[in-house]
Amino acid sequence: MTREFAFIDALRAIAVNPAARGLADDAAVLELGGQKLVLTMDTLVEGVHFLPDDPPEDVAWKLVAVNASDLAAKGAEPLGCLKSHALGDEDWDRAFLAGLDLACRHFRVPLLGGDTVRMPPGSARSFSLTALGRGPEDRPVPSRSGARPGDLVWVSGTLGDSGLGLELLTSGSRVQTPEATLLANRYRRPMPEPSLGVALAPLATAMMDVSDGLLVDARRMAMASKVAIRIAADEVPLSRALVATVGDGLEQRIAAMTAGDDYVLLFTAPAVNSAFVHAAATCAGSRVHPIGTVDEGEGIALDWHGQPAPLPEKLGYQH
Amino acid sequence: MTREFAFIDALRAIAVNPAARGLADDAAVLELGGQKLVLTMDTLVEGVHFLPDDPPEDVAWKLVAVNASDLAAKGAEPLGCLKSHALGDEDWDRAFLAGLDLACRHFRVPLLGGDTVRMPPGSARSFSLTALGRGPEDRPVPSRSGARPGDLVWVSGTLGDSGLGLELLTSGSRVQTPEATLLANRYRRPMPEPSLGVALAPLATAMMDVSDGLLVDARRMAMASKVAIRIAADEVPLSRALVATVGDGLEQRIAAMTAGDDYVLLFTAPAVNSAFVHAAATCAGSRVHPIGTVDEGEGIALDWHGQPAPLPEKLGYQH
Repeated sequence: MTREFAFIDALRAIAVNPAARGLADDAAVLELGGQKLVLTMDTLVEGVHFLPDDPPEDVAWKLVAVNASDLAAKGAEPLGCLKSHALGDEDWDRAFLAGLDLACRHFRVPLLGGDTVRMPPGSARSFSLTALGRGPEDRPVPSRSGARPGDLVWVSGTLGDSGLGLELLTSGSRVQTPEATLLANRYRRPMPEPSLGVALAPLATAMMDVSDGLLVDARRMAMASKVAIRIAADEVPLSRALVATVGDGLEQRIAAMTAGDDYVLLFTAPAVNSAFVHAAATCAGSRVHPIGTVDEGEGIALDWHGQPAPLPEKLGYQH
Repeated sequence: MTREFAFIDALRAIAVNPAARGLADDAAVLELGGQKLVLTMDTLVEGVHFLPDDPPEDVAWKLVAVNASDLAAKGAEPLGCLKSHALGDEDWDRAFLAGLDLACRHFRVPLLGGDTVRMPPGSARSFSLTALGRGPEDRPVPSRSGARPGDLVWVSGTLGDSGLGLELLTSGSRVQTPEATLLANRYRRPMPEPSLGVALAPLATAMMDVSDGLLVDARRMAMASKVAIRIAADEVPLSRALVATVGDGLEQRIAAMTAGDDYVLLFTAPAVNSAFVHAAATCAGSRVHPIGTVDEGEGIALDWHGQPAPLPEKLGYQH
């Protein structure tokens, strides 16, 4: 058990309010005057979640995007955000604000407040953002624990692009092609879709965002829901850019399913509702892809063209 | 203009949503389903807002308290908080959590979520907390800008204790007496009173918390309200511990009025309502003290036993 995991376990003993959802969901859900307030907070640390030479506009975009992704996962319409900012170089901060403005407009999450602090010299800076959204009015906010046998498993976008983009950016090679640029952009500017989350929430039995890798996140959903999730590796959507760059076999698909930073939605819905699921996604201007099934049992399993395939040792980014 | 001030000015150009209150108030106020959601976020940085050898329980207490103070200033009943935590030493973190638990219970602000991050080796850690509260239902959430000529100016507690406590702690001298212990405790464990803020909100024309020094914060209120505020230095409440430690003259009173970290309420109310103000405070189990008047004009002025006294050069902690 890592330090981070042990610490979160200790936090859980404090966060006993039902709105905290046992710190086991993407967001807290607070009932207030007949409304459901969805609350999430994510922090990006220099040297941990971004590199000192990453474009500041992208760091700001990512800060907003990772929180917007949590709102999307709970079917919440964004209401606003508060940001804590560690001051750095003046030009860097100015560029960061330009990216922040752009991202706040794109995700329709207006900046409402926050705090600005100085750091001691030589310290890594960190940026925290709290985002608020309004959950569905007439039904529960989807959790990770509602998947039921008979459901299909869906994702809302291609997997592995961001992870490969990061790999290309850090290796320094092949970043000149249009495909590499597209992949790098998926890493730098994740594009979660809160409006898609809002459209899917009434149909989803369970929903979360994929941030640490599809397989590890699917296992978290299976554990929370006390079911087994079986994923058809050959059904997982891949981008043309990824296939053009690394090819398309089981090995590449496993890499794509265990890479982080996808920020797409993973959700389940009864198989009989599949036409409605497709229609809701179309209405929200997006597409969704069935990639597996929910069964009695526990854990996750992988199929490759109808035959069981072994799970990789590492399912994704483990905290 | 400091870097921090220039940066906040640039932020203001982005935070144009009315709920942000121009980033000029203690908190954002978001209307949601007929409710007024009060939102604040404060960050404590190691080596800036607390010292590495400060007791971790106190750091956690302060993190909750400074946010609770903002809720109090807006007359908001606490609803919950989210916290971003930078992992450090295991024992330190464990003690921090104990202090966090205590503070969350004391201020009735349940922990609902947040994020836990690692820092690069050698980096100062920082802790952010977002607190949410419910503002008054049937009237506006008090701002800093509502003070009117004819109002009296009030504070909800003694001034300067925390600043003197910090001075004693850092000088290392005189921390053995009961008075010194009490003063040090005012620095380490600020005691804002959200329930007092809730009780005063219906009567206050303007309200804010004193965090950077009474004089600088009173000037901010005067500027926001476009009025002049005159403070009777001899009416400002001082603790017995402070008087016993440094004595009681104009010099000591100016020191008390320009020291930071008081976390008491500063508010104005029509002079004719003074009996109601006292009654509301008594009902909330607290006491409030009239210390001055609001007049036409601008800026602040100081009296000492009925005679004008010069303002000190430094009014408090200036960002």
